[in-house]
Amino acid sequence: MTTVSDRPAAAENQPRSLRPTTADHRVDVAYLTEHLLGRWPEQRLAGRRIGGDPRYSKHEGLSMDDHRARVLEQIRLLAAEEQVFRAFPERLGGSDDAGGSLATFEELITADPSLQIKGGVQWGLFGAAILHLGTPEQQDRFLPGAMTVDVPGAFAMTEIGHGSDVASIATTATYDAETEEFVLHTPFRAAWKDYLGNAGKHGTAATVFAQLITATPGQAPVNHGVHAFYVPIRETREDGSAGDFLPGIGGEDDGLKGGLNGIDNGRLHFTHVRVPRENLLARYGQVAADGTYSSPIDSPGRRFFTMLGSLVQGRVSLDGAAGIASKIGLATAIRYGNERRQFAGASAADEVVLLDYAEHQRRLLPLLAEAYAGHFAHDRLLDLFHTVFTGEMDTPESREDLETMAATLKPISTWRALNTLQTAREACGGAGFITENRLVSLRADLDVYVTFEGDNTVLLQLVGKRLLADYAAELKGIDGVGMARFVVERAADSVLYRTPVGRVVQNLVDSGSVRRSAGHLREEATQRELLTDRVEAMVAELANALRPASKLSRANAAELFNTHQHELIEAARAHADLVQWESFTKALSDVRDPGTRQVLTWVRDLFGLSAVEKNLAWYLINGRLSGQRARAVTSYIDRLLGRLRPHAQDLVDAFGYGPEHVRATIATGIEKERQDEARDYYRELRASGDEPVSEKALKARAR
Amino acid sequence: MTTVSDRPAAAENQPRSLRPTTADHRVDVAYLTEHLLGRWPEQRLAGRRIGGDPRYSKHEGLSMDDHRARVLEQIRLLAAEEQVFRAFPERLGGSDDAGGSLATFEELITADPSLQIKGGVQWGLFGAAILHLGTPEQQDRFLPGAMTVDVPGAFAMTEIGHGSDVASIATTATYDAETEEFVLHTPFRAAWKDYLGNAGKHGTAATVFAQLITATPGQAPVNHGVHAFYVPIRETREDGSAGDFLPGIGGEDDGLKGGLNGIDNGRLHFTHVRVPRENLLARYGQVAADGTYSSPIDSPGRRFFTMLGSLVQGRVSLDGAAGIASKIGLATAIRYGNERRQFAGASAADEVVLLDYAEHQRRLLPLLAEAYAGHFAHDRLLDLFHTVFTGEMDTPESREDLETMAATLKPISTWRALNTLQTAREACGGAGFITENRLVSLRADLDVYVTFEGDNTVLLQLVGKRLLADYAAELKGIDGVGMARFVVERAADSVLYRTPVGRVVQNLVDSGSVRRSAGHLREEATQRELLTDRVEAMVAELANALRPASKLSRANAAELFNTHQHELIEAARAHADLVQWESFTKALSDVRDPGTRQVLTWVRDLFGLSAVEKNLAWYLINGRLSGQRARAVTSYIDRLLGRLRPHAQDLVDAFGYGPEHVRATIATGIEKERQDEARDYYRELRASGDEPVSEKALKARAR
Repeated sequence: MTTVSDRPAAAENQPRSLRPTTADHRVDVAYLTEHLLGRWPEQRLAGRRIGGDPRYSKHEGLSMDDHRARVLEQIRLLAAEEQVFRAFPERLGGSDDAGGSLATFEELITADPSLQIKGGVQWGLFGAAILHLGTPEQQDRFLPGAMTVDVPGAFAMTEIGHGSDVASIATTATYDAETEEFVLHTPFRAAWKDYLGNAGKHGTAATVFAQLITATPGQAPVNHGVHAFYVPIRETREDGSAGDFLPGIGGEDDGLKGGLNGIDNGRLHFTHVRVPRENLLARYGQVAADGTYSSPIDSPGRRFFTMLGSLVQGRVSLDGAAGIASKIGLATAIRYGNERRQFAGASAADEVVLLDYAEHQRRLLPLLAEAYAGHFAHDRLLDLFHTVFTGEMDTPESREDLETMAATLKPISTWRALNTLQTAREACGGAGFITENRLVSLRADLDVYVTFEGDNTVLLQLVGKRLLADYAAELKGIDGVGMARFVVERAADSVLYRTPVGRVVQNLVDSGSVRRSAGHLREEATQRELLTDRVEAMVAELANALRPASKLSRANAAELFNTHQHELIEAARAHADLVQWESFTKALSDVRDPGTRQVLTWVRDLFGLSAVEKNLAWYLINGRLSGQRARAVTSYIDRLLGRLRPHAQDLVDAFGYGPEHVRATIATGIEKERQDEARDYYRELRASGDEPVSEKALKARAR
Repeated sequence: MTTVSDRPAAAENQPRSLRPTTADHRVDVAYLTEHLLGRWPEQRLAGRRIGGDPRYSKHEGLSMDDHRARVLEQIRLLAAEEQVFRAFPERLGGSDDAGGSLATFEELITADPSLQIKGGVQWGLFGAAILHLGTPEQQDRFLPGAMTVDVPGAFAMTEIGHGSDVASIATTATYDAETEEFVLHTPFRAAWKDYLGNAGKHGTAATVFAQLITATPGQAPVNHGVHAFYVPIRETREDGSAGDFLPGIGGEDDGLKGGLNGIDNGRLHFTHVRVPRENLLARYGQVAADGTYSSPIDSPGRRFFTMLGSLVQGRVSLDGAAGIASKIGLATAIRYGNERRQFAGASAADEVVLLDYAEHQRRLLPLLAEAYAGHFAHDRLLDLFHTVFTGEMDTPESREDLETMAATLKPISTWRALNTLQTAREACGGAGFITENRLVSLRADLDVYVTFEGDNTVLLQLVGKRLLADYAAELKGIDGVGMARFVVERAADSVLYRTPVGRVVQNLVDSGSVRRSAGHLREEATQRELLTDRVEAMVAELANALRPASKLSRANAAELFNTHQHELIEAARAHADLVQWESFTKALSDVRDPGTRQVLTWVRDLFGLSAVEKNLAWYLINGRLSGQRARAVTSYIDRLLGRLRPHAQDLVDAFGYGPEHVRATIATGIEKERQDEARDYYRELRASGDEPVSEKALKARAR
C-alpha cells in the first residue's frame, strides 16, 4: 500500500475544476481498506499474505514445464504450511467454513492465477466433488489425499464434444454385478475428457463424470444419468510424483495455452477401466451390489441439477478472483495515470498528467466504479454461498438463488477483468505491454475465465431463463381479477412507452433544464427505477414474445426462442447491472465515515448512470427517458468523473494491495522520479544560461 | 482454402429461416477471392506464399531467445530469397513500388507477427528513415546494409518519457564545428530511447531522433528541432552477429512482452557519442561544415510534420496486417461455428450447430462485415499511399489526406483485430484457449498494435482535429451573405433536431410500419445520410462548443478543449465508420458477379446499420431516428444476420487463406469428423438394440 506521502499530489498543477470541491469529501483510506475486507477479514488477509509471499509469486518467463513444476510445489507448500483446508469437515482437519475458505482462495490470484486455479482444481473441484457428491465414508477415504495433494486430482467432467451441455457427455460407467465393479469407457474420440487441470501430467486420480448404466438380466440396460466416480489414473512413484497411466487409461497433454501455463491441462480416455462399486460417489445415487439403483432424489432431472449445483463454488470464487485481478490492473493504471505526463497543457512548460485528460478519465474511472460495484455484489454472493453451504439456510430456493446469482456475476466480473486489464494496459502505453508491468500476463491468465466453469454466454442465458420463470410464477400467483388488471396495466404501460406521448410530456416537465434533470438522476430512487424498470420491461416483453411457444411444434418453438436469444441475454445483463447497483447501495449504508460515504456514493452513481448510458437507446426507444434527460445522463457522468478524479488514487489504494501484490515496475513511483529528474535538468539548464533557443522562437523574434 | 466439398453443408438440418432465400444469391468464392487481391495481386500472393511457407511460420512455445534468433534468421532469409526490396529505389535493386511492397509485407503476419514487425522495423522504419529522410548519397551509403540486414537497425525515436509527443524528446545532437561531428547525448533517464526493435540484441546501427543543436561562437545555441541521425551502436562480429555496444552507448533489454517475443525490443542511451556530420539524414535539414543550418522547409513546425509524415507507411501496413489477423480469426471461428454442435434443438436427437444460434450470429457476423469494410477501406488507403509515395500525386493536400486516412483506419482496424480475435477465441470455447488453435497467440502478438506507431486514442484525436479544421475552412470559404444563410440553416437544423417535432413527424410518417422502415434502411442513400449526417452534426456541434476558446486564456482554452475531448474522439470514430462504409459501397460497383454482389451488399448493409445501431442513442437524442425506426434498425439487422448466415463460410473462404495460413487444428474439419464418428456410434447402438433406456423415460412410461 502506498502511504499518503508517497501518493502523487493529485491537486497540484491542475485546473481548478479537477480539484476536490470540499475538504470534507475525503476517502479515509485506512478505514475503507478495512471495511472492504468484509465478513472474513482474517481469512482474506491470510490469502493476501500468501499472495504477497515471494515463494508463491509467478516467475514470468519460465518454460511451461518449469512453471508447472513450480506451481505443483507451491500447492503442496500451501497444503503443508497454510490454512487452506477451511472448507473441509472438522473431523478431517478443516473448519466447515465455506465462505472464509473462498475469501482466502480468491486472494491467491495475486500470487499467480495458475496457483489459484491449480488450487481450485485440486480442492475446489476434485476435492469438492468428493466432499459434496461423496458419502461421509468416501470423504474419509478420499479427502485426505486430495487435501494434502498426495493425490493430485483431475476433475474429469468436460469432454471434447460436450462442455456446456454436461447432460450429454458420452463416457459410460456400466455396472458389472458379477465383479461389483463399474466399467468406465470412452466410446469415441469426442468423448475424451478435455481441458482438465492435473490430467496433462501431475494427476494420479480423477473424479470422472459418466453416464451410470445398470443392467438387469433380460431387460434393457438403464441409464441413470451423469454421476461421478473416483478413478485412480496414474501410478504414484516412490518420490510421490505421477508415473505412467494405469492400464486402460490414456491421454494427451493440452500443451501450451493462452495463459495459466502453470497448470497441466490435458485429455483422458478410458478403455473398459474397472473401479470398485464403492468408488461411485454415492451421496445422490447409489448402486447396490446386485445392481439396484437408488437415489434420495427421485427425479433424474432434479438429481442432475442438484449434483451440478453442489459445485457452484467454482463460479463464486472466480467472481471474487476476477474482481481482484481488475483491482490490480486499476492500481497500476491509475497510479501511472496520476504520474505520467504527456503534451503541454495549461502552460507550455507543464505537461499534463494523463489522468487529467477527460478521455483518460472516461476510460478508467467507470471501470473503477465497476470494480467497486463488483466488489460489493461479490460480498453478497459469498455471504449467500456461506449461508447455503454451512446449512444456515440450505433450502431449494436459496440454492437456486445462489446458483442464479453466481451465474449472473461470474460472466460480468470475468469479462470485466479482461476489459479492465486491457484498458489498463493500453492506458500505460508501451510500458503496459512489457511483462515486468504485469498487465499483459494477468490478462492472458484471466482469458479463459470467461469460458470455463460455465461459458459466460451460456450462463447469462440460464439467468435469462430464470428471470422468465420467475415472471411466469408471478403471473400464476395472481388471481383471476388480479390477472385481468395486471394485463391491462401492462398494456397501458406498453402504450405509454411505445408512443411518443410519454416523451413529450417529460420534455415539457424538464423544460430544457439539464441541471434539474441531473438533480433527479442523482437520486437513488431514480437510478433504482431506471435499472429495475429495464429488467422488468425486458422480461415482460420477452415473456410476451415467447408466449406462443407453448402452442408450437418443438422445432418452431426452438426457432422462436432462438429469435429472442439475444434479448434474453441482454435481459440477464440488465439484471446483473441491477444486482450490482443494489448491492452497492446496500453497502453504502454500512459505511460510517461520512467523507468516504460521500465519495463512494458518487462512485455508485457513476456505476448506475454508466449502466444507463450504455443502454441509452433502450431508454429512449421505450420512452423511459426523454432526449433532454438522456443528454443529462451523459453530462452528469462527466460531472461525476471530474468529482471523482481527485479521489481516484485513494480509491485504488483502499483496495489494500501493496507493491508485493501489484508487482508492476511502473506502479512504484519510478515514473514520477524520472520526470522530477527531467524537470530538475531543464530548470538547471535554464538557470545556467546555456539553454538553446528554439529556431521557431528566433524566427518569431526576427519577424 | 477449403474446397467446396470440404465445406460443411450449412443448409442441412437447419430451420427454414436460416436457408438461403434464393438460389441466385450465391457467393462465387473463386471470383471473390481473386477480386479481393486488389491492385497488386501478384505481390499479395507473393506475401501469402511466404506466409504459408513453414520456414517462416511461428513455432509456438520457443523460448524468447530462440524465437528472436529464428526471426532474425527469417528476415535474412527473406532478404536473400524473396522479393522484399520493392519499396526501395531501382538503382539499389528495388522497384520504387510503394503500394506493391506493402501488399507483400502485410501478408507476412500470417507467418508470424514478429516476422512482420521485425521486417517493419528493419525496412519500414530503420530503412525507411534512411530512404525518406536521407539524401540520395546517404541512401547509397546506408541502404544496402539495411536492405540485406547485414546491418540490423533500430528506429530510435520514442523515449521513456515521450512517446506520442515526439516533438518533446530530450536526446540532443549538438554540432561540433571543430571536428565536424554531432555529439549525441542522453541528458537523463526519461530520455533513454525505449521499446525499439533490434535495440535489445541484434541491432548494430540505429536511426536516432534527437534535437539538433547548432552553436555560433558568442551566441546562444539554437535548437532546430527533431532530426534523424545514422548512428552505429554495436560492433559487428566476424560472423555477422552483433557484438558489444560501441563506446558511449548503453542500453537494456525490454525482456519479455505480452507478445511479439520474436523481436528484441530494448532501450538505448548515449553519452557524448560522436558521429560524422554526414550522418545527419539531411533531406529536410542540413548543417554546413561551419555549423550553418539550412532546410528546404523554412517553418520548423511544417518541417517536423513533413519528416514524421514521410514515415506514414508503418500505419498503413499495420492497418492492412491487422485486417488480415481479423480474417484469420474469423476463418477459424466461423469454420468451427459451422461444425460444432451443442445442445439439442429442433429435435432431441439433433444438436444445434453453433452458428445457427442467434447470439452466435450476433457475435460473429457483424465482425465479418467489419472485416470486409476494413478490407475495402484499406485498399483505398494503400492506393492513396502509392499515389503519394511514387510521386503520381504528391501534394501537401494528398499527403495530409493520406496521413488523416491512416490515422483514421489504423486505430479502428487494430482495435477490431483484438476484438475479433477475442470474440473468435471465446466462440471456440476452451479449444480457443489452446495455443495450437492459434487465436490466443495471434491476439497476444496483435495487442501492442493498438498503442505503437501512434497510440490509437491520440491518433483519433488528431483525426478529430483535422475534421474541425476542415469545418473551419469550409466556414471561412463562405462569403458574408452565404455565411449568414449557413448559420441560419444550422440554427434551423438545430431546432429541428433538438425538439421532439422531427421525431413526432417521423412517427406519423412511419405510422408504425417496421417493414416500411426496413425498406428505407436498406437504401444506400439512407445509410449514407445517417452516417454522413452524424459526422457533420458532431463536428458542427463541437466547433460551436469550442468557439469561445479563441477568446480564453491558454489554461482555460485547454480546459474547454479537454471538456470536449471525448466528443472529439467520438467524431473521429463516426468519420471512420463513414470512410469504411463509403469504401465498401464504392467497391460494390466493381463486383461483376451479381450473386456475389447481392451477398456483399447485405454485408455492407450489416456494416452500415451496425454502425448506426451502436450509436442509436445519438440518432434518437438528435432526432435523426424515431423510436419506431430505431427499432427497425435492430430488426433489419436481425434479418440480415439470418440472410447472411448460410453464406458465412463462403465469405471467410473468399479471404483466400488456406490451412497453411490459418494453422488452427479446430479449423481443419476435425470437429465434424469427431461428431460424425459419435453419430455413427449412436446410430449403430440404436440399431443393435443394446441402447440403454433412460431412467427418465422409464419413469415417464411408468406414470
